[in-house]
Amino acid sequence: MLRSIATVSVSGTLVEKLAAIRAAGFDGVEIFENDLLYFDGSPADIRKRCADLGLQITLFQPFRDFEGVTQERLAQNLNRAQRKFELMHELGTDLVLVCSNVNPNVIADDALIVDQLGQLALLAEREGVRVGFEALAWGKYINSYRHAWRLVDTVDHPSLGLILDSFHTLSIDDPIDPIADIPGDRIAFVQIADAPLQKMDVLEWSRHYRCFPGQGDLDVAGFADRVLATGYQGPFSLEIFNDGFRAAPTAATAADGYRSLLYLEEQAGLKGARSKDGQPLFTPPAPPAHSGFQFIEFAVDSTSAPRLAQRFAEAGFHAAGKHRSKDVTLYQQGGASIVLNAETDSFASEFFHRHGLSLCASAFQVDDAARVFERATSFGYAPFSGRVGPNERVVPGVRAPDGSLHYFVDARPDEPTLYEADFVLSAHDSERTQAVQGELKRIDHVCLDLPADTLDTWILYFRAVFGFDAEPAWLLPDPYGLVRSRAVRSADGSVRIVLNASVDGRTSTAQSLHTYRGSGLNHVAFDTDNIFAAVEQLRARDVQLLRIPSNYYDDLEARYDFADGVVRQMKEAHVLYDRDAQGGEFFHVYTEQMDGRFFLEVVQRKGGYDGYGAVNAPVRLAAQAQRKHS
Amino acid sequence: MLRSIATVSVSGTLVEKLAAIRAAGFDGVEIFENDLLYFDGSPADIRKRCADLGLQITLFQPFRDFEGVTQERLAQNLNRAQRKFELMHELGTDLVLVCSNVNPNVIADDALIVDQLGQLALLAEREGVRVGFEALAWGKYINSYRHAWRLVDTVDHPSLGLILDSFHTLSIDDPIDPIADIPGDRIAFVQIADAPLQKMDVLEWSRHYRCFPGQGDLDVAGFADRVLATGYQGPFSLEIFNDGFRAAPTAATAADGYRSLLYLEEQAGLKGARSKDGQPLFTPPAPPAHSGFQFIEFAVDSTSAPRLAQRFAEAGFHAAGKHRSKDVTLYQQGGASIVLNAETDSFASEFFHRHGLSLCASAFQVDDAARVFERATSFGYAPFSGRVGPNERVVPGVRAPDGSLHYFVDARPDEPTLYEADFVLSAHDSERTQAVQGELKRIDHVCLDLPADTLDTWILYFRAVFGFDAEPAWLLPDPYGLVRSRAVRSADGSVRIVLNASVDGRTSTAQSLHTYRGSGLNHVAFDTDNIFAAVEQLRARDVQLLRIPSNYYDDLEARYDFADGVVRQMKEAHVLYDRDAQGGEFFHVYTEQMDGRFFLEVVQRKGGYDGYGAVNAPVRLAAQAQRKHS
Repeated sequence: MLRSIATVSVSGTLVEKLAAIRAAGFDGVEIFENDLLYFDGSPADIRKRCADLGLQITLFQPFRDFEGVTQERLAQNLNRAQRKFELMHELGTDLVLVCSNVNPNVIADDALIVDQLGQLALLAEREGVRVGFEALAWGKYINSYRHAWRLVDTVDHPSLGLILDSFHTLSIDDPIDPIADIPGDRIAFVQIADAPLQKMDVLEWSRHYRCFPGQGDLDVAGFADRVLATGYQGPFSLEIFNDGFRAAPTAATAADGYRSLLYLEEQAGLKGARSKDGQPLFTPPAPPAHSGFQFIEFAVDSTSAPRLAQRFAEAGFHAAGKHRSKDVTLYQQGGASIVLNAETDSFASEFFHRHGLSLCASAFQVDDAARVFERATSFGYAPFSGRVGPNERVVPGVRAPDGSLHYFVDARPDEPTLYEADFVLSAHDSERTQAVQGELKRIDHVCLDLPADTLDTWILYFRAVFGFDAEPAWLLPDPYGLVRSRAVRSADGSVRIVLNASVDGRTSTAQSLHTYRGSGLNHVAFDTDNIFAAVEQLRARDVQLLRIPSNYYDDLEARYDFADGVVRQMKEAHVLYDRDAQGGEFFHVYTEQMDGRFFLEVVQRKGGYDGYGAVNAPVRLAAQAQRKHS
Repeated sequence: MLRSIATVSVSGTLVEKLAAIRAAGFDGVEIFENDLLYFDGSPADIRKRCADLGLQITLFQPFRDFEGVTQERLAQNLNRAQRKFELMHELGTDLVLVCSNVNPNVIADDALIVDQLGQLALLAEREGVRVGFEALAWGKYINSYRHAWRLVDTVDHPSLGLILDSFHTLSIDDPIDPIADIPGDRIAFVQIADAPLQKMDVLEWSRHYRCFPGQGDLDVAGFADRVLATGYQGPFSLEIFNDGFRAAPTAATAADGYRSLLYLEEQAGLKGARSKDGQPLFTPPAPPAHSGFQFIEFAVDSTSAPRLAQRFAEAGFHAAGKHRSKDVTLYQQGGASIVLNAETDSFASEFFHRHGLSLCASAFQVDDAARVFERATSFGYAPFSGRVGPNERVVPGVRAPDGSLHYFVDARPDEPTLYEADFVLSAHDSERTQAVQGELKRIDHVCLDLPADTLDTWILYFRAVFGFDAEPAWLLPDPYGLVRSRAVRSADGSVRIVLNASVDGRTSTAQSLHTYRGSGLNHVAFDTDNIFAAVEQLRARDVQLLRIPSNYYDDLEARYDFADGVVRQMKEAHVLYDRDAQGGEFFHVYTEQMDGRFFLEVVQRKGGYDGYGAVNAPVRLAAQAQRKHS
């Protein structure tokens, strides 16, 4: 399958775009007319540049408002087409996209349109080019691929084919099953775009909010599956209009685009489709089964290490082991493991140099670490291997989008555990037993602060490599602006990561990006079976909890029925509360910030509650802001 | 008229909000429930804080989903209301906003709803508070103020009134004339919001895109006019949900909000309404009649002055005079005047210190300078007076939103002109005559690069002080992101200013903000009667024009019919072209950037063309980017 992308999908000048598109791995490119108009050189120069790069020009587009017009206008349009066909010869592509007329005065007469498209097909044949006809979702008369196909089928000319676009079909809930009935050789081209579900005008939605497959909510895989079922042999080509992509670095966007096509091929393949052109679809190793975080690892230096260790000790963690060959310490409580890495001349020390005290690595418990590693690298994510001492376990890892490390760890029944292999573990003394029996059981979720333009990159990464689901986004009001928040999670909920990105302004997330000089940890949340006992333990060790205003509890009482004393208990413990539609309950409490950077959360889930208390985030953000500004 | 604003309209913690709201001049404030919940203190603390500031709490809001419910739910809702009424006593306000139910299960039965609202009114009466009922534009059953009024009127209880909101009415095109038939004393409260016209879900539109009156497209003045006609005596209160305001500095937003209410009062007053409570509506001096730019003034130092003078000389400008008392030089061509200000220890030198070579002032020809000055200061814009030498004219000026100066100059038939008074003018030698007879006739428009969050501030400033119209916004694709562009202009078109703000990314506008350390000049455009003669003159003096790709001209030829040779002439001259729906034509050409900062444009308007060639902006932006990156 030839992988293609439209120049409009990435930022930059045409020269920058073509170089980045090729570097990302694409074989083909659609030349968007505006990019050609803005290019200071001839169409032949573009042809040569693409040829030198090894890029095929798969399509020239768009040609607008051709059909359903008066005879006089038709003559003008055919003349205009003639000029563009000549340009296509120079450009070195034989396919042009004609999109359905959006003019309010379009003549709604299928017979007339068939005649006019027929004339265009004859002209194309004479000029040795092909026309692909596409229904825009907001076309004035033709807005469905089924209508466009009836017309193309009736014209029945080899120089006129149908162009399909996943967005134009899925955005208007046009049924996708009939696609499979179209002969594959009559489909001239297929464009691919995803989008987040939004209640808005479809034209505005298309022009500003498209995204790569795997980043949005549309059933692009189902669409691709139906297309492949037709025997279609041509390219899948990304055509993404996205305000963020227009402003984002060219190379990174192109790389994500290529990965998203790989992901789409796999997803479509999972639904049973297979490419029939001999080129197999992308079939990476299967995504992992998850069973939780193995550990999270902080980059520290000799100054911050004891300070951070002290804070985790106060939270009930126990110094469980020292690494055999490195200046690395393990802290544990229940099933939660924290690693502090103070090794000099290492990845962690480089990370510390760049970001200060920060989360430099996370390790995930999976069914088969080697397979996940292979999966990640097959999507083009960069492998990482650090120094390994004698008899220590080799842990496969890749670079996450922020440059931190993600390790994959599998259970090996016949071998020492990772900790046994790599660490000198503390004796099971009474102190340790007490800590392991503390109220914090495991890592519930980790929350990261990200630059706004990287959120989609992370979503694609977690979906593609980890097989995570992405939940709908929340817009959280911070006192100084909005924060977009989106959670990803394993199907079983054992691994959850919340991604926060500041829309703009002076939010705590925006400040965090300054503090860390890049992405950074917002907070880490631990599970407990008893939130009030956990708070008592924290307070016994003088952990400062984030103070929640009493007005919040008065409102809770007005909104819900509680057993006597529960609200008073929550109020005294500064515990926040949420309840889902099924009656599931969520209790959570925050510590004050550690080291001016991140904080801890303790959560208790009851009755299948599956969220993160996002309704309470504004209370928390306001309380944190009041702490800073008071 | 009491001027009020809802706490949700500005950023910050509640403490910051209240202080800024008072400082801006408001007499009243609506306490949004979330701000109360997030406040770390009691409702009585808020009451005291407001009292100390001299702010009246005009309203507590919102109370949701009360009416059209089952008997069981009604009991819960009345209990919830009871709690909130008690809270209102502590808070010190007697009015609560109840907004129409958005629950899909609302019972659509007017008789039932009248009964339930009646019970709420009785409870309110017992508690000594009042309820205002408001129809949300997206209310499930009640979404029009007319429906809400029928219900309130039927209940007919003094503790239940109607709340009107300009957005909820105007956003759904609800007719505003029937407002005038409602008895003013039955209107409990009036909320005010404007919004730009957008094709989107009305709830999303309301939650994210509201703006202050004078910044959007709704007929808020017409709405206010009908409200005042009822004899309504209560506050006008701004309730603005705006993503940008949430992130913008609190004090500046509050100040703009107050000005926008003044502007609204004037606009409503112009439509014939008068407040009947004895407090006159705001009646500033009338806006000016305009007749063009008097001059634009650059802050320069001894190094940049000769360099810039040289560039303007190349563009055909003549050194027309030296200031009598300052190191200030006047350059002229036709009716266009440029001032270079190198005076040390002056406003200009401070401006240069801050922004480098930059536009530090603009002067506008108006019918009555003193009146415009008084108008500007009555809206709270800061006056400016610089040093004035003996016999020099005192020119009234105010600070524009970026800190630069806007001077107002009127024609005084019996006095020396401003230039005669303040400058030693060059003799009318042949050189000067030639320059005055150059091809550039006058300043057509000035284009500024602004921080994104100040665009609305400028729109309000130009509408309020100058009486300008604001044209619809354009989104211009720069190769590295989108630029929002909106033009303001005098009714006669003699003064036009284009405001550009980068949505995000690495656009030339975003870069400009770095270069200038703040807002700055993007370009200044001069009118000509003969674009090709103007280009010839520029080239004769070796002015470098921005090179436009030849593909652009091939496309022009495919799109339009031109007389033979015209396109070739444009292509050779690097002249861009636009045509409006009425056949009006626009020819324009750009110079290369001056001093890495701004550039000049020469434009020719034909047949009543009234725009700025925005369709060509992407070509220009791409050409400029290619220049920088090649």
